[in-house]
Amino acid sequence: MPTFQLSHLARELGLVLKGGDLVVSGLNTLEEAGPRDLSFLANPKYARFLGSTKAAAVIVDAEHAKEVERALISEYPYRDFGRALALFARGEGAFSGISPLAFIHPEARLGDDCTVYPFVFIGQRAELGAGCTVFPGVYIGEDCLLGPRCVLYPNAVLMSAVKLGKECVIQPGAVLGAEGFGFTRTENGIQKIPQAGSVTLGDRVEIGANSAVDRGVLGPSRVGDDSKLDNLVQVGHNVSMGRRNLVVALTGIAGSVSIGDGNTFAGQAGISGHIRVGDNTVIGPRSGVAHDVPDNFQGGGSPLMDKMTFLRHLSLTPKLGELYKSVKRLEREVKELRNAGKSSAAL
Amino acid sequence: MPTFQLSHLARELGLVLKGGDLVVSGLNTLEEAGPRDLSFLANPKYARFLGSTKAAAVIVDAEHAKEVERALISEYPYRDFGRALALFARGEGAFSGISPLAFIHPEARLGDDCTVYPFVFIGQRAELGAGCTVFPGVYIGEDCLLGPRCVLYPNAVLMSAVKLGKECVIQPGAVLGAEGFGFTRTENGIQKIPQAGSVTLGDRVEIGANSAVDRGVLGPSRVGDDSKLDNLVQVGHNVSMGRRNLVVALTGIAGSVSIGDGNTFAGQAGISGHIRVGDNTVIGPRSGVAHDVPDNFQGGGSPLMDKMTFLRHLSLTPKLGELYKSVKRLEREVKELRNAGKSSAAL
Amino acid sequence: MPTFQLSHLARELGLVLKGGDLVVSGLNTLEEAGPRDLSFLANPKYARFLGSTKAAAVIVDAEHAKEVERALISEYPYRDFGRALALFARGEGAFSGISPLAFIHPEARLGDDCTVYPFVFIGQRAELGAGCTVFPGVYIGEDCLLGPRCVLYPNAVLMSAVKLGKECVIQPGAVLGAEGFGFTRTENGIQKIPQAGSVTLGDRVEIGANSAVDRGVLGPSRVGDDSKLDNLVQVGHNVSMGRRNLVVALTGIAGSVSIGDGNTFAGQAGISGHIRVGDNTVIGPRSGVAHDVPDNFQGGGSPLMDKMTFLRHLSLTPKLGELYKSVKRLEREVKELRNAGKSSAAL
Repeated sequence: MPTFQLSHLARELGLVLKGGDLVVSGLNTLEEAGPRDLSFLANPKYARFLGSTKAAAVIVDAEHAKEVERALISEYPYRDFGRALALFARGEGAFSGISPLAFIHPEARLGDDCTVYPFVFIGQRAELGAGCTVFPGVYIGEDCLLGPRCVLYPNAVLMSAVKLGKECVIQPGAVLGAEGFGFTRTENGIQKIPQAGSVTLGDRVEIGANSAVDRGVLGPSRVGDDSKLDNLVQVGHNVSMGRRNLVVALTGIAGSVSIGDGNTFAGQAGISGHIRVGDNTVIGPRSGVAHDVPDNFQGGGSPLMDKMTFLRHLSLTPKLGELYKSVKRLEREVKELRNAGKSSAAL
Repeated sequence: MPTFQLSHLARELGLVLKGGDLVVSGLNTLEEAGPRDLSFLANPKYARFLGSTKAAAVIVDAEHAKEVERALISEYPYRDFGRALALFARGEGAFSGISPLAFIHPEARLGDDCTVYPFVFIGQRAELGAGCTVFPGVYIGEDCLLGPRCVLYPNAVLMSAVKLGKECVIQPGAVLGAEGFGFTRTENGIQKIPQAGSVTLGDRVEIGANSAVDRGVLGPSRVGDDSKLDNLVQVGHNVSMGRRNLVVALTGIAGSVSIGDGNTFAGQAGISGHIRVGDNTVIGPRSGVAHDVPDNFQGGGSPLMDKMTFLRHLSLTPKLGELYKSVKRLEREVKELRNAGKSSAAL
Repeated sequence: MPTFQLSHLARELGLVLKGGDLVVSGLNTLEEAGPRDLSFLANPKYARFLGSTKAAAVIVDAEHAKEVERALISEYPYRDFGRALALFARGEGAFSGISPLAFIHPEARLGDDCTVYPFVFIGQRAELGAGCTVFPGVYIGEDCLLGPRCVLYPNAVLMSAVKLGKECVIQPGAVLGAEGFGFTRTENGIQKIPQAGSVTLGDRVEIGANSAVDRGVLGPSRVGDDSKLDNLVQVGHNVSMGRRNLVVALTGIAGSVSIGDGNTFAGQAGISGHIRVGDNTVIGPRSGVAHDVPDNFQGGGSPLMDKMTFLRHLSLTPKLGELYKSVKRLEREVKELRNAGKSSAAL
């Protein structure tokens, strides 16, 4: 990691330096930081470590800054920890230039300052914007169109005509534009419906390791600006997803789903085909979403329940046995009462 | 996309052309089709667009054909839309021939008209049928045996001795024949059980992007003719799956499961090890299947319930809180009644 | 497969040979073994095949050895079947040496007797221990450190600075050290938190096909000695997992989870972020684990329930409709009783 003056970091990040200047050479947690490390307090539950940390300085809010000798005072310490980390973190990969061991079709076009590692395949008429980095084993099919400064990590696959906006990141092994699950049962067996569309990503979209976004049947499947997909996520054909969505690992989004902006899908959620999810929803882990979801909805479960109903459901689920016993006992007691009633009526 | 005379398409697909002949150059939905596009009506809920579509002609059933000027009349419009799309759709990949940048073992054998891209590895004694296409980054282990016209998309992996029937399609990143999860806990820790079998696919089998089918312990894991696996599906060692099964994304099938013909497993379902699923079942999304399933079963849930019970369960799940309150109230009321009974008996 | 004298196998495995010596050339199940195959009885439910098997000899416990002519008598027949299989099973891959078609950075260091296939990328300062095997399409980033005798199957990816102990096995397409899901929502949209850590595996760790273990934010994500991950498993950033854990396919472990030793997670389980799982637990398939789990816990479900509660829950789940009807009937009956009580009180 490089080294920085605290005063330099304060200027770069627009923060206020409290205490004397010093050189720092790394970033670490309050507990593990050494005397040349910068640290941070993002979660108040770790404030108890402020007294004992060995860190040279701490990125911290104004209130907690009193508790340390040297601080970079921030309104959003976690955000600014992230920004500091971006200064310290080394990029992956030391290679630069265009490897002679890559296969680049003579009709492909590469912008300035692209890096192409060995064993990359770039097909006919593909175009890469300036400053793209393509790691080993990546496949870029014909007619793909990449904006500037995209990073494609090892063994990522872009089938033909996939479009990426600027600064997209495709993690290792992710597959964009594979033929979707287009099959229909007929009296003669299963017939394949060819998929003639592709995949279009907006700007700054990230796709996680070994995730898959299928091509559309006719037009593109879409993932909008700043949406981020975690690892092992499946997105079916014809899905249209807006901006600033976060989709956590192992979630499956079936074909032709329409998703607005600003949503969060927690891990292992499943979204059924052809439904519509609005904006700014939060869908809990392992949810099964089978119907349209309105804007600002928060909830979880399978079937999907609003947050209050879901939390109640979670707390009652382990009590189902008790509930069953209560009902059985009530049935006995009511029967006795009814029998007693009949006896007394008969008197 | 190429262009076609409607009369040519009618002949090719065995359909009846209503209205004058015309050239079409694309396929699109009723809403988005332009005056040179062919369109289709597969789902009656879109029939309302027949009046306003700009499409040159529509693939449609006899009843709805009255509503448009030009039609290709079909008994199965969705199937025939798929067949038309196959005529329009361009194959993936412009490369042909055997790349000198591939590694092909001298003892491997390739049939006529195979296409082998750069950076492909084909091992000793592997045999490829005529007309196979192998995309960049594919690994074909020694002793693999591929039928004619198989397509292996980028970075697919076939470990040694995997067998494919004819016209199989392996999507990008799919892995056939990895060592399964063969471990046993012993008093000395965890011992590996080596897996000596392989994987055998029938004809026209498709395996989705980043899916995995593990090799058998002794014999092969099998997937029968015309079965189609979606993306990110896991099939464990020794699984035997019959014909015409559809397995949707993120489903996991544990080791030694036996599956008949014509089944549909919806997304994120899980099938426990060593059970038997019959023929023609439909298992809903996110189901947990822990016991044998008879022929023609339809259902869902975890535990697996028949369709009626499952639908009832889905509708009652959000009412568990109410149910609990009702039982608490009943308990109070019954207690009062019992006390009242005792009092009156005591009179 | 090679051939062995039974007496040789008995010596190698430390078993007692009952019956005359013989050459065997394969291993198979009791039902499918031929007269030159060795077989085994691991599960007593197959003991009925001992009378009719054609196997040359059977690995079997002392009690069942009486029922066959020739046996290798074992206290742990399944373990010893595994050990025998390891003698019979051929390793994957016939290639040896360092392929001139691999890209190996001049500052990388390879131990003795490594095998490097074509189309492998090994980055700057990476070090491989003696006897490692690296299959085609593997990416080993700069500063990676591999212990002796690791096997990296085709298209596995190790991002920079990943560390493997000795004898680790990385199945095809697995990704170690991808950037985790480090994003935070701010008022200006989603900001990326760079991930500067890496991944450290202990000795004899196995990672399944197309699984992913993300790098830590600052330090390494860890998987301890002898832990085994199945296919399509997701392990988030900063996870710390101990020794001898088994994690079955499609399980997701969120960021910063801490896991002890000797645990078993069945398929499609999900573990929420920042929780702690103790030692020697068994978590059932499709469980949703949202809170800390104590040592020796056994259970399942979502929310996670102890085994007895979970089994009761499983058996009652399909009866929810009945339960609901019972409560509705009780409400009617209790209302009648209350009305009857009021009437009689009014008399």
